[in-house]
Amino acid sequence: MNKPSIPKGTRDFSPEEMARRNYIFNTIKDVFSLYGFQQIETPAMETLHTLMGKYGEEGDKLLFKVLNSGDYMSKVSDEELAGRNSLKLASKLCEKGLRYDLTVPFARYVVMHRDELQLPFRRYQIQPVWRADRPQKGRYREFYQCDADVVGSDSLLNEVELMQIEDTVFSRLGVRVVIKINNRKILAGIAEVIGLADKIVDITVAIDKLDKIGIDGVNAELRGCGIPEDAVEKLQPIISMSGTNESKLDVISNVLSKSEIGLKGVDEVRYILDKLKLCNLKNEIQLDLTLARGLNYYTGAIFEVKALDYPIGSISGGGRYDNLTGIFGMPGLSGVGISFGADRIYDVLNGLNLYPADALNSTRLLFINFGETETAYCMPYVQKCRQSGIATEIYPDSCKMKKQMNYANAKGIAYVALAGESEMADGVITVKDMKTGEQRKVSPEELLSVVSC
Amino acid sequence: MNKPSIPKGTRDFSPEEMARRNYIFNTIKDVFSLYGFQQIETPAMETLHTLMGKYGEEGDKLLFKVLNSGDYMSKVSDEELAGRNSLKLASKLCEKGLRYDLTVPFARYVVMHRDELQLPFRRYQIQPVWRADRPQKGRYREFYQCDADVVGSDSLLNEVELMQIEDTVFSRLGVRVVIKINNRKILAGIAEVIGLADKIVDITVAIDKLDKIGIDGVNAELRGCGIPEDAVEKLQPIISMSGTNESKLDVISNVLSKSEIGLKGVDEVRYILDKLKLCNLKNEIQLDLTLARGLNYYTGAIFEVKALDYPIGSISGGGRYDNLTGIFGMPGLSGVGISFGADRIYDVLNGLNLYPADALNSTRLLFINFGETETAYCMPYVQKCRQSGIATEIYPDSCKMKKQMNYANAKGIAYVALAGESEMADGVITVKDMKTGEQRKVSPEELLSVVSC
Repeated sequence: MNKPSIPKGTRDFSPEEMARRNYIFNTIKDVFSLYGFQQIETPAMETLHTLMGKYGEEGDKLLFKVLNSGDYMSKVSDEELAGRNSLKLASKLCEKGLRYDLTVPFARYVVMHRDELQLPFRRYQIQPVWRADRPQKGRYREFYQCDADVVGSDSLLNEVELMQIEDTVFSRLGVRVVIKINNRKILAGIAEVIGLADKIVDITVAIDKLDKIGIDGVNAELRGCGIPEDAVEKLQPIISMSGTNESKLDVISNVLSKSEIGLKGVDEVRYILDKLKLCNLKNEIQLDLTLARGLNYYTGAIFEVKALDYPIGSISGGGRYDNLTGIFGMPGLSGVGISFGADRIYDVLNGLNLYPADALNSTRLLFINFGETETAYCMPYVQKCRQSGIATEIYPDSCKMKKQMNYANAKGIAYVALAGESEMADGVITVKDMKTGEQRKVSPEELLSVVSC
Repeated sequence: MNKPSIPKGTRDFSPEEMARRNYIFNTIKDVFSLYGFQQIETPAMETLHTLMGKYGEEGDKLLFKVLNSGDYMSKVSDEELAGRNSLKLASKLCEKGLRYDLTVPFARYVVMHRDELQLPFRRYQIQPVWRADRPQKGRYREFYQCDADVVGSDSLLNEVELMQIEDTVFSRLGVRVVIKINNRKILAGIAEVIGLADKIVDITVAIDKLDKIGIDGVNAELRGCGIPEDAVEKLQPIISMSGTNESKLDVISNVLSKSEIGLKGVDEVRYILDKLKLCNLKNEIQLDLTLARGLNYYTGAIFEVKALDYPIGSISGGGRYDNLTGIFGMPGLSGVGISFGADRIYDVLNGLNLYPADALNSTRLLFINFGETETAYCMPYVQKCRQSGIATEIYPDSCKMKKQMNYANAKGIAYVALAGESEMADGVITVKDMKTGEQRKVSPEELLSVVSC
């Protein structure tokens, strides 16, 4: 028999990993709820109709496609078979695929449920997505996304609140961050004033890589896209601009004085920053004019969050998009959202050891099993502890003490309760603190207060 | 453009549905944790190696198979193509499939992680599974399973604790139930004493249908399987046995007096029932000798839970299996587990209207948006409410009052806060109870206590 395995790029999550992941997800969910966001879920499988053409040509290739059930071959003609074209045949063999992100299914959801939804709709969604990417360190074929979006409101208050959510989540997790913001309209304005409005995408993509490839790399990439030398020159002060948010806004509004869209972007950033000043954020908000975010559908504010004390890419990000549901025939609906990178946040919390102890512990108290009589003596107390909300186990087998103590240690159980002949005679229970090793006899009533948190 | 749709047999879950489902899952999770069970997760995709041959021939057909990425056609020979055999070709086109249940992935998990696990291992798992069944009312192609198992311990204390979990979960959910138990060894003993030990599966399957098809139906099915008339006769008093658990145990231990395995089953049931008497269960435990559970891998205790006040099939079930991991080359590991039927429990709670109000509400307080000045006045109070743990929104746009109130009503928001010119002048906030319609002016400090739960 072959040793069992799992598909490459996928993972099992052990109890310890799940406890850590649940701590992260629960922290995020609590904050989402506090801001009035409600959870939805969509199916793992979507029709290929919904998915194809939404993620570019490369994305189509990275979709996991699900083979049709039954006699799927009967729908394929001899000519099609003979062609042996894997890409073309896939659309004959399959009509469903696995969700590639949460945004397209959400857009599909909004369109399908438009009549039930009260706009603005504040939804969050935490579900796995699947991509047939080449697996590598930190990149998986199955991973969770964790998104919150507001659709149906143009108000910049939504942007303000999303920034507050970022600040609150990372404060609660104990991660010091910088929250970077920018605006696609500013980037569009810049392209306009250097006379290259049609090159906005190329410029955006190049500038976005500043962190990774440095200023020389960005310039090389700009030239590679056919941006003329004088335009590259004009971009330099913008790319390397430093100073306070206010001084940056002053400089850039001068640069963009002749671009309507650019000035609109400046106004939006100013509004958001002004409002956030009233909010006593715990983390710095930084206007970063080189922040571009790769995704093309953003049209207004864009955000990105970086951890200050741990070297890793952005751990959260998002932005405003003006036409979420247009792809499904429902134009004119604006949205703005953020997404938390659960796997990276997990790495940061592990790297900085930021998990509170009580988030990771499972069972608090283990009753040792000495046999039938002792078990019968213990069971009412086991039940009382559970009724008081204390996670409690009784070891199911009356095996060697050492094995039972090993179990308690391996599971990180805080207290062990023992009751043998002498305890039963005295009507008491011996309780051992597994950390200090200290042990003492207590009455059943005392037991509860000893093991309570 | 086509209207978007989702694959048949799959579902979107709206915020209201998610709140209800989360209430159920959180209740179950809390109880699992209280008993020392820890959560794991496994990938949605497993290798077909892991999945195929585990669910019978029919199950193999119902597996959703995932098309290989890249140039998958290159691995298929011309002969294989020409055969046009959908079933055979699937194994060439696909090497992964979607999880069909949580039991096989769990067995695979235990074998792969055997060296990290401290036995007995108490795990729970709540994840969706996928089956290409014909969709019909109450049967979906994607649905959640919710399983708790203990592996690596033969002790019947595990069975006792699982019954306590069933009792606690349904008590907390407010659902009155009967918990039925039986034992496969008793069924084997019955088959043995009527001289048909080799017919145990047929007898089990037939008896299991008593609830659905009645005694005459069961007898017809028994005869149809070739069970002789005298054996069918002998089964009658067992199938229609009534009375207390004790009297049933007395009768059946007489019937089985010459069957070693049968008497072992009786002893096991007696032990479990005796121990449960010490546990003050809120629901009745009923020995039901016709309970058989369809699945063939059970070898000892079997359980099933039925709602008393709502007509629906079993809402939970489980049992003891002696060879969970044998299929993956790791024999001799015994396990026992239960599974909650989330979709049916959802139907029961809906049907009986058992959701507590606070489980379903999302936002508690909405601040009406009257414009920029008013918003600036309100924002510090919005923040204070959130800091006090009150789910609070401020309507993002300063649109018509009626639209904002409609939003509050549609979302079931309990309180609305209003601050216009007069409130700002007096430094107060008007708060309206959306249920009673009552409204009054309060100081910002009072606001918190008014809207607190």
